[in-house]
Amino acid sequence: MPCAENKDERWFEDYAAGAVYELGPIVMDEAEILDFGRRYDPQPFHTDPAIGAASPFGSLTASGWHVCAVMTRMLVDGLISQRASLGSPGMDQIRWLKPVRPGDALRCRLTITSARLSRSRPGCGIISMDITMVNQHGEAVMTCSGAAMYRTRPK
Amino acid sequence: MPCAENKDERWFEDYAAGAVYELGPIVMDEAEILDFGRRYDPQPFHTDPAIGAASPFGSLTASGWHVCAVMTRMLVDGLISQRASLGSPGMDQIRWLKPVRPGDALRCRLTITSARLSRSRPGCGIISMDITMVNQHGEAVMTCSGAAMYRTRPK
Repeated sequence: MPCAENKDERWFEDYAAGAVYELGPIVMDEAEILDFGRRYDPQPFHTDPAIGAASPFGSLTASGWHVCAVMTRMLVDGLISQRASLGSPGMDQIRWLKPVRPGDALRCRLTITSARLSRSRPGCGIISMDITMVNQHGEAVMTCSGAAMYRTRPK
Repeated sequence: MPCAENKDERWFEDYAAGAVYELGPIVMDEAEILDFGRRYDPQPFHTDPAIGAASPFGSLTASGWHVCAVMTRMLVDGLISQRASLGSPGMDQIRWLKPVRPGDALRCRLTITSARLSRSRPGCGIISMDITMVNQHGEAVMTCSGAAMYRTRPK
């Protein structure tokens, strides 16, 4: 299975269309939800537990961008080969589906939907991915798709 | 002009298709680039100035998600009405076009592309936006589009 490999020995060729990865969990810490919210997304339902409890969400909730950041941490820890990574050109169709609350344990389910060589950049391949972030109740809290660029295996 | 208004007096009806907002600047601080990178996107070009300098990017670079977070801070500070905000359903077509480096002064150029009432949720309107993040050289470093939900004006 892909997750059993040492990810840092991977090159572009080791990321195959159809491969599925399960990453995480990461537990969402209240103090970190508040810290992220206060720095980057200071809306009261991300920065004040009492206001969050009285909001339509029913509790303090993590910024959607915090969920993206935690997803990225899972990808860096479990998927992305440090020696092969060339970064990401972008992400698409981010959908914040459910509130993420303090104590939620998030996992990332990732499917590689395509893997192709770059036409413009020799030695570079582009992986496309569909991603679902799931909480401890099995609910999808966020979905997105995106791409990542990797060096091809040296000859 | 929209930016001269008190944003916290806005309701859905105050966000009009065609309106353009210029937000920021926020200067990207090296210590914060490193902190964000180490927490959420620990790839060496986001966490180590020396490795960044030797990378294809030519310097330490901010995580693309850090740029999204800084964009969000600009929106919360300059666009989003705290009393009317109902959060965002999602974002689309995030494209990280140029490296963002320590000391870069980013601005956000935002155009409202549509404003419509929700069919499923009474008292809620949905704004669509096209966004470009620009550095101090006038270069677009990131583009995206997205949506935000606002309460309609009470009757």
